[in-house]
Amino acid sequence: MTAFPFRIDATDGAARTGVLETPRGPIRTPAFMTLATTGTIKALQPEQVRSAGADIVLGNTYHLMLRPGAERVARLGGLHAFMRWPHPILTDSGGFQVMSLAALRKLDETGVTFRSHIDGSAHTLTPERSIEIQADLLRADISMQFDECPALPAPRDEVARATEISLRWAARSKAAFGARDSQNLFAIVQGGTDEALRRSSAEALVAEGFDGYAIGGLAVGESHAEMLTTLDATVPLLPAARPRYLMGVGKPVDIVEAVARGVDMFDCVLPTRSGRHGQAWTDAGPINLKNARFAEDLAPLDETSDCPASRDYSKAYLHHLVKSGEILGQVLLSWHNVAHYQRLMARVRAAIAAGRFADMLEALREGARR
Amino acid sequence: MTAFPFRIDATDGAARTGVLETPRGPIRTPAFMTLATTGTIKALQPEQVRSAGADIVLGNTYHLMLRPGAERVARLGGLHAFMRWPHPILTDSGGFQVMSLAALRKLDETGVTFRSHIDGSAHTLTPERSIEIQADLLRADISMQFDECPALPAPRDEVARATEISLRWAARSKAAFGARDSQNLFAIVQGGTDEALRRSSAEALVAEGFDGYAIGGLAVGESHAEMLTTLDATVPLLPAARPRYLMGVGKPVDIVEAVARGVDMFDCVLPTRSGRHGQAWTDAGPINLKNARFAEDLAPLDETSDCPASRDYSKAYLHHLVKSGEILGQVLLSWHNVAHYQRLMARVRAAIAAGRFADMLEALREGARR
Repeated sequence: MTAFPFRIDATDGAARTGVLETPRGPIRTPAFMTLATTGTIKALQPEQVRSAGADIVLGNTYHLMLRPGAERVARLGGLHAFMRWPHPILTDSGGFQVMSLAALRKLDETGVTFRSHIDGSAHTLTPERSIEIQADLLRADISMQFDECPALPAPRDEVARATEISLRWAARSKAAFGARDSQNLFAIVQGGTDEALRRSSAEALVAEGFDGYAIGGLAVGESHAEMLTTLDATVPLLPAARPRYLMGVGKPVDIVEAVARGVDMFDCVLPTRSGRHGQAWTDAGPINLKNARFAEDLAPLDETSDCPASRDYSKAYLHHLVKSGEILGQVLLSWHNVAHYQRLMARVRAAIAAGRFADMLEALREGARR
Repeated sequence: MTAFPFRIDATDGAARTGVLETPRGPIRTPAFMTLATTGTIKALQPEQVRSAGADIVLGNTYHLMLRPGAERVARLGGLHAFMRWPHPILTDSGGFQVMSLAALRKLDETGVTFRSHIDGSAHTLTPERSIEIQADLLRADISMQFDECPALPAPRDEVARATEISLRWAARSKAAFGARDSQNLFAIVQGGTDEALRRSSAEALVAEGFDGYAIGGLAVGESHAEMLTTLDATVPLLPAARPRYLMGVGKPVDIVEAVARGVDMFDCVLPTRSGRHGQAWTDAGPINLKNARFAEDLAPLDETSDCPASRDYSKAYLHHLVKSGEILGQVLLSWHNVAHYQRLMARVRAAIAAGRFADMLEALREGARR
């Protein structure tokens, strides 16, 4: 396979900023990937997400294979055409969501059989099928290896078993992926919060050789401090020349802490899910628009933003929409949050380029302590 | 009061097309008013509704007085500023919805007391309070008289009583409205399907003198034929020089039949409500996107439209969104339906101007018979 060119333009401590060049366009790093779980960035049109500054979104193999079905997406032209997002897409492998959402799952060396949480129908995911779905049917720009991700806390031997099967599935994923000119495959380091397991996982995957390396199995129940310690132990083991992706993270302060440790890519459900539940992310943390103190607040969420949802609507109006359960409230808050996260990443990149990243990190740490 | 200039540019039989000039901009007639019930055109941003061709939207006094409260809207700058719709707004008087939605209502000569369907709080609506809410607090461009509208079928003496009290409330509404330079007040003809009641109601209101005349009490349970017979009997009694507004109507064929009888303005919940329930209006009637026959249909809803929701998304994708209960499906179908209705009205206006309205009417009748 041919790894996408990854250019690092500036570093500040372990933090780095650059561009991952894909055939569908550049991904500026550090990058936050907005979720397009079921083939839609929930509540938003693709143009709204693009105008908010997003270079790449993340699709979920588990959801899409169940509905509308991966073969159907392929017949309809692939995921980019189906959802009208012509820019880069990364897909997860389905491994994480099979474990968190599916019913009656049975895991063995081959893969996982399970029943759909939607209609109870039976399905199988193996490394080979996951890659077929991601790369051949959905036509993702970046596919992820199939893996098993245990929720934490978990007994060490359980984490060790999952880490080892994930390594064998990584090799099978790579073999199934084969050589491709315009698509990439990322590996996933597992090992929970156990330093030795993380090391053996990372070393084996790097020896195998992938286009990028993800850190999986965090943001699944461990503490903030445990997450940072695990990153401290893991990131230095990953090749500096390839992108590093911390899966499922997170709050702004988590993202910035991980950037400080050399991570380049992130994804998280927070901005879109919070938006659907009446929350808006601001520089001072999340606020709940349902709160009565916003009932006559004529200020917008962020008058310095060029996102219409952030700049043009009063908090009083958003309060009214949220209190009334109006769809427009979910649309506008989702849009604002997606834009807020993209603006955060733009500030992260600018701070690294200007050698001011430590100041930004300290400010976010202070905000999180308040 | 100063009636807004109403210019009739062309007629074709009883149908007419023209422009009602308001200080907030022209309303091209025949006009369809999209509902902005609770201060939001459900699921849509104001810019989307405007770009779909809407000149005017309709706000509901009943909903807005309960939440966020009319005094609050006034403190926030009035309804136009609150919901970011700087173009004309017509408000209903609350009379219709008090009768259909509120609990424990008690009606006497003074007005109606009732309890909120949201929180059970006690409220009163009188002609004077309704006008205060509409014209002073919400700052509607066009206010409607306070009226009582019985559901049909109803005993004749019940309809007669409601018609008579509505006449007395019309006079009180007019007195409360007083003389205003930049706002108008419309009367509402009642009388159910009874020709004599309609005549006495219309004659009394015209003698009183209003800026426009609505036909209320239809689309409340009577048949399509009864509605048309009532229009035949009522519209000719209304002054040709002022706008005529058929309240709560309706399906495309109902609208075009009423235009053929000389009606200029309409409102209806159908396009937005259908959109939230997975239905798209097309020239061949409504279609339900949930239907499996759309699962792999790559055609858009209307490739000739310049509304992105109609033109850019495949039916297959809309089917997936609707089946998955995704908010974006509700957004896109609402937007498409609003645009479809506005395009219908544009075609009605063009057909009248070109003297081809009879052909359009016949085509719609034929479609409705199929």
